[in-house]
Amino acid sequence: MKRPFKTLTSRIAWSCPWYAIRQDEILLPDGSQGVYNTVTTSTAVWILPVTPQGEIVLCRSYRYTVDDWCWELPAGSVKPGQTLEEAALEELHEEVGGRCEALTHLGQFYTANGICDEVGHYFLATDVTLGPTAHEPAEVIEVHIKPIEQVLQMAFAGEITDAPSALVLLQSAEKLRNLSG
Amino acid sequence: MKRPFKTLTSRIAWSCPWYAIRQDEILLPDGSQGVYNTVTTSTAVWILPVTPQGEIVLCRSYRYTVDDWCWELPAGSVKPGQTLEEAALEELHEEVGGRCEALTHLGQFYTANGICDEVGHYFLATDVTLGPTAHEPAEVIEVHIKPIEQVLQMAFAGEITDAPSALVLLQSAEKLRNLSG
Repeated sequence: MKRPFKTLTSRIAWSCPWYAIRQDEILLPDGSQGVYNTVTTSTAVWILPVTPQGEIVLCRSYRYTVDDWCWELPAGSVKPGQTLEEAALEELHEEVGGRCEALTHLGQFYTANGICDEVGHYFLATDVTLGPTAHEPAEVIEVHIKPIEQVLQMAFAGEITDAPSALVLLQSAEKLRNLSG
Repeated sequence: MKRPFKTLTSRIAWSCPWYAIRQDEILLPDGSQGVYNTVTTSTAVWILPVTPQGEIVLCRSYRYTVDDWCWELPAGSVKPGQTLEEAALEELHEEVGGRCEALTHLGQFYTANGICDEVGHYFLATDVTLGPTAHEPAEVIEVHIKPIEQVLQMAFAGEITDAPSALVLLQSAEKLRNLSG
């Protein structure tokens, strides 16, 4: 479909090692000029780790941005030079100490398309076994293992407060119930 | 639960009329100092509009951030002085020209808790009737009306690419199927 905005100029207005603000001057569909700021960041991956016993590995993470503890799936950014799959395997290992036998790409979404260009890809990781984690100093993550049906109930009840994690769980509900036998 | 990070200093590093970057110096759990940047923005609302005929009102919006057309629910920011309900009714009216007979708060989530403090609240709007929209110049939105089951299928198939909209639809699937009778 037709692109309704025309970009006149584009510059980085602010940046940090994790994301930047791209400030564009644009021509709007009504012919007027405007400024559009985009939080520009790497593609991200969310991983849905299932154990051979039909359990899901969840993170309970302290998030400084919202000053709250959140139930989440392991997730993280795709680093330069990594494939999506490499990033998913790395985050599975670092955040919950997981290794998997198979990794399947399930889908993708825009995390916050009103302000940010982040694309989130999500993967099912099966036959996951756990070992030591490798958290960064700013990652405060507890690892929890819960039966599939219990985690789905948490997602339907709104207890998985990280929106992308809840989306991945609900979109995968049927697949997960088949896995849990 | 215990707050694992201590905030040492806090300042606004960059701002625009829609959001700002808050840059904090923090003390990490391991005793080291770090910098944490948060995209700080208003609370947002998503509205799930259902007509008396058992249809959902969807937006198809061009999103400059991701240079793509996205299927979405009407949504927007809560303005200073507005209640969540007032914001939801305003966005329903402005984005799709909708008025409703009843508005029910269904839940809340963190949109992107890795970088942003946005809290999203979502509402079911029932007996929705449509009139003229009131789009801002930078809003490029088509209004579509589709049967509930078709929209749920789109959400399960990953066609609703705005993650919060897809989450709201999937979390409300049972409630929607009851409404469609």
